[in-house]
Amino acid sequence: MKKLFFPLLIATFILSGLSHYMHWGPITEFVISAIAIVFVAGFLGKATEAVAHYAGQRLGGFLNATFGNAAELIIAFFLIKEGMFDIVKASLTGSIIGNLLLVLGASALAGGLKFKEQKFNIHLAGQNASLMLLAVIALFIPAIFVKTEHIPEKDTLMLSLIVSGALILAYVGWLIYSMITHKDMLEDQEETQPAHGEEPAWSKGKAILYLVLATVMVGFVSEWLVHTLDTFTTKFGLSELFIGAFVVAIVGNAAEHSAAIMLARKNKMGAAVEIAVGSSLQIALFVAPVLVFVSMFFKDHMNLIFTTVELAAIGVAALIATSISRDGSTTWYEGKLLLIVYAILGVAFFFV
Amino acid sequence: MKKLFFPLLIATFILSGLSHYMHWGPITEFVISAIAIVFVAGFLGKATEAVAHYAGQRLGGFLNATFGNAAELIIAFFLIKEGMFDIVKASLTGSIIGNLLLVLGASALAGGLKFKEQKFNIHLAGQNASLMLLAVIALFIPAIFVKTEHIPEKDTLMLSLIVSGALILAYVGWLIYSMITHKDMLEDQEETQPAHGEEPAWSKGKAILYLVLATVMVGFVSEWLVHTLDTFTTKFGLSELFIGAFVVAIVGNAAEHSAAIMLARKNKMGAAVEIAVGSSLQIALFVAPVLVFVSMFFKDHMNLIFTTVELAAIGVAALIATSISRDGSTTWYEGKLLLIVYAILGVAFFFV
Amino acid sequence: MKKLFFPLLIATFILSGLSHYMHWGPITEFVISAIAIVFVAGFLGKATEAVAHYAGQRLGGFLNATFGNAAELIIAFFLIKEGMFDIVKASLTGSIIGNLLLVLGASALAGGLKFKEQKFNIHLAGQNASLMLLAVIALFIPAIFVKTEHIPEKDTLMLSLIVSGALILAYVGWLIYSMITHKDMLEDQEETQPAHGEEPAWSKGKAILYLVLATVMVGFVSEWLVHTLDTFTTKFGLSELFIGAFVVAIVGNAAEHSAAIMLARKNKMGAAVEIAVGSSLQIALFVAPVLVFVSMFFKDHMNLIFTTVELAAIGVAALIATSISRDGSTTWYEGKLLLIVYAILGVAFFFV
Repeated sequence: MKKLFFPLLIATFILSGLSHYMHWGPITEFVISAIAIVFVAGFLGKATEAVAHYAGQRLGGFLNATFGNAAELIIAFFLIKEGMFDIVKASLTGSIIGNLLLVLGASALAGGLKFKEQKFNIHLAGQNASLMLLAVIALFIPAIFVKTEHIPEKDTLMLSLIVSGALILAYVGWLIYSMITHKDMLEDQEETQPAHGEEPAWSKGKAILYLVLATVMVGFVSEWLVHTLDTFTTKFGLSELFIGAFVVAIVGNAAEHSAAIMLARKNKMGAAVEIAVGSSLQIALFVAPVLVFVSMFFKDHMNLIFTTVELAAIGVAALIATSISRDGSTTWYEGKLLLIVYAILGVAFFFV
Repeated sequence: MKKLFFPLLIATFILSGLSHYMHWGPITEFVISAIAIVFVAGFLGKATEAVAHYAGQRLGGFLNATFGNAAELIIAFFLIKEGMFDIVKASLTGSIIGNLLLVLGASALAGGLKFKEQKFNIHLAGQNASLMLLAVIALFIPAIFVKTEHIPEKDTLMLSLIVSGALILAYVGWLIYSMITHKDMLEDQEETQPAHGEEPAWSKGKAILYLVLATVMVGFVSEWLVHTLDTFTTKFGLSELFIGAFVVAIVGNAAEHSAAIMLARKNKMGAAVEIAVGSSLQIALFVAPVLVFVSMFFKDHMNLIFTTVELAAIGVAALIATSISRDGSTTWYEGKLLLIVYAILGVAFFFV
Repeated sequence: MKKLFFPLLIATFILSGLSHYMHWGPITEFVISAIAIVFVAGFLGKATEAVAHYAGQRLGGFLNATFGNAAELIIAFFLIKEGMFDIVKASLTGSIIGNLLLVLGASALAGGLKFKEQKFNIHLAGQNASLMLLAVIALFIPAIFVKTEHIPEKDTLMLSLIVSGALILAYVGWLIYSMITHKDMLEDQEETQPAHGEEPAWSKGKAILYLVLATVMVGFVSEWLVHTLDTFTTKFGLSELFIGAFVVAIVGNAAEHSAAIMLARKNKMGAAVEIAVGSSLQIALFVAPVLVFVSMFFKDHMNLIFTTVELAAIGVAALIATSISRDGSTTWYEGKLLLIVYAILGVAFFFV
């Protein structure tokens, strides 16, 4: 697999470009660009990790944390450029619930079938739960206020900007807290070290070059993918909500999925949880608010008001993931529960 | 009391039959059949336990788990046959909140007045909390989606069937998990053993015969009881919601109530919690979804969409019961809190 | 500061009276009476503590608990007399979220910047969480039932009275539980003792005299303050909700704020939590229901139905405060999180 990565990366990237510029038809284009994005996102992930390695522990952790969802951020950027706010919000929703339910659930199930009980740092689990709650609150409060009190559009946008600012502040605080002031309290006892400690395959210069290259590639493929979505939804009659929340989100998070499951099978559940919960926290506390600010540079501005069903899905996913991970251990059955909730949400979104 | 059980069982059963066929008037019929159902449900419970004893630990546990709410299932069957879906859902709601608030609350209060603090397996409490949350989510999600997105009736039914299937899958997984793969982790340290270990009074053949007999008797009395509800509600002006959620639910769960309180007084709080929380989990994860499938055999089909007030009641009951039992111990005051929430819900349902 | 307290108390009280009777204009009157109420509320707090000291531990604890929010109770009394129910409910909401988010958050942040982790009794934290949940449930249930089922005004009032009675019952039970039957289980290991154990500066007779005097003074200043609110809101265009929830609530709880932060800086986080969480519990379980009963003596009766945004704010504050304090420890970042949620709510209320 490792040997084939680069050939496949380049092949799918070129094929995706060809299909886009030669108009092979929306479905073919969608399928090829969806496969390509998995590879370029994986490439971006590897390059980020390598650069992070050379940057030293602190700056490296920060790079990992902020570039971790770069693919989603770039896909969303092109969606915002096209004014497709509904799909943006649906895909943010999908990323959050996908990480909390599908990634965490599949990891706990895969790991739990091999090990009876998998433990991880209980302090981190508690902190994650509180942060997740903050994210849910920050998305719920403006929505409830706007929906029940009929706040005018201008004030809604201002409210969205302020709440977004508060979330980014919370995220920056979290980076300082978890990487500097309370680093020791939140670490697994040796478990997560190997995940970050591996010697990267590339030299420093190569790593930086690859990071730039990967970002550019993700940018191109994202734009090609986004262009197909419109026709794609009309052909299959699927709602934008379903496409955004399940198709775009699963494709955009494929790298996280495989990494977390592999770690769980090696009994490094702490690292798997960090990927799953950490990713969804990043999306809620960093990607979503940044996108609100980004949209200010375009003609149409995006607010932070999600639909009721999106909020319900996020709230429900946060609740059950928190309830299951709070005790600092998982079993196969808890993984299965998370997957069942994900399936229920998937079916419900499908019928909307 | 033990000596009088069989005479009273037979007497109330015959009286209930007589009142039904001789039309003694709806109120008399209701009162007599309500008393009779307490006895036949108790008989069914005893017979199930005896058969479970002979069936061996695993199959026995399964029998206990699935026959535990047989009385409710049978009552609900006759209500569905009559198309009284509102009362079915109200009585399911009532069973869930009755077990979580009234049974658990009365047990914790009764036990807590004798013992300062009563402890039980903290692992089981955590698992119960997550399962309860799954049940709440599975009932909330379709309701929120249907209510805010105006999903057509046909899709609502399909969504209900799929969610019901997912719940039954979760329930079967739970049986495998708690009885086979993680049995040791979830057991009390000796506490619950005696409850199951007592030698049954009846031989194997007699036990099976009694199980069949009890099921038939519950069937008859349930039908007689259901027939009176209609006139009964119109006479007293009580809403179907109140009748279903409080009258039917209290009558149908009388056996659990007395068993749990008796166990709590003997400081076997773990077993009392298992009855209370286990029963409500069974109703939400097994009885309710099975009834949705059962209704497919009749002309009118029942979906899984509960009313807003029913969902609020279930959500609230699950939250407070979980918050109180999560630490693996109860005190008299926690019991009182649960009873106060039950009273508040009762009053609120009464005013609807 | 201590030496200046009495001169400032008397000066601000007299100034406030002068500004009221000589009509210095609503804004001047508001500012002066807002400053004066901070001092008279502080005076009332000191007098209560002194009388509690002489009354012995049990009666003293009770006095402290019930007089602790006397200032809010008196302000609310005058608002009810004027029929300003919306401001009353907004200020109750503001007191609850102010204590749970602002007081607790500022304490945890102030303490956390000095100490890495501050621990307190985990039993008490769990009990507080369950009680807070009861309070939230008791406010949510009538609101949900009334809003979805269109219950007539007369029944709404009856439901409010019954729920209020249930809450007062729960509060009295809590006093018995925490001060008599389970006192030992809920105490910090020595931490909170000094807070209550200090020798009061006044003799018994003086303390009682001061308690009466302080109550009278709070009464006067409250009335003067309430009189200015009307004009004040119209001048600045702020909603009654914002005025009640933030201005009145912050002014009315100033004493608690400073006390809790000082305790946290002395590493007595247990006592700080008790002030913050205890105060909000008192408001929800005692002050709010008592006000419903009090309103029965006036022409217009106040029910217990809060608006959707108020309920959302209370629910959200209770959830995050519970999530953060449940593990029996706080850090600076958890304090920051609470303050961020408070800021988000403040902005949202401002835009209503």
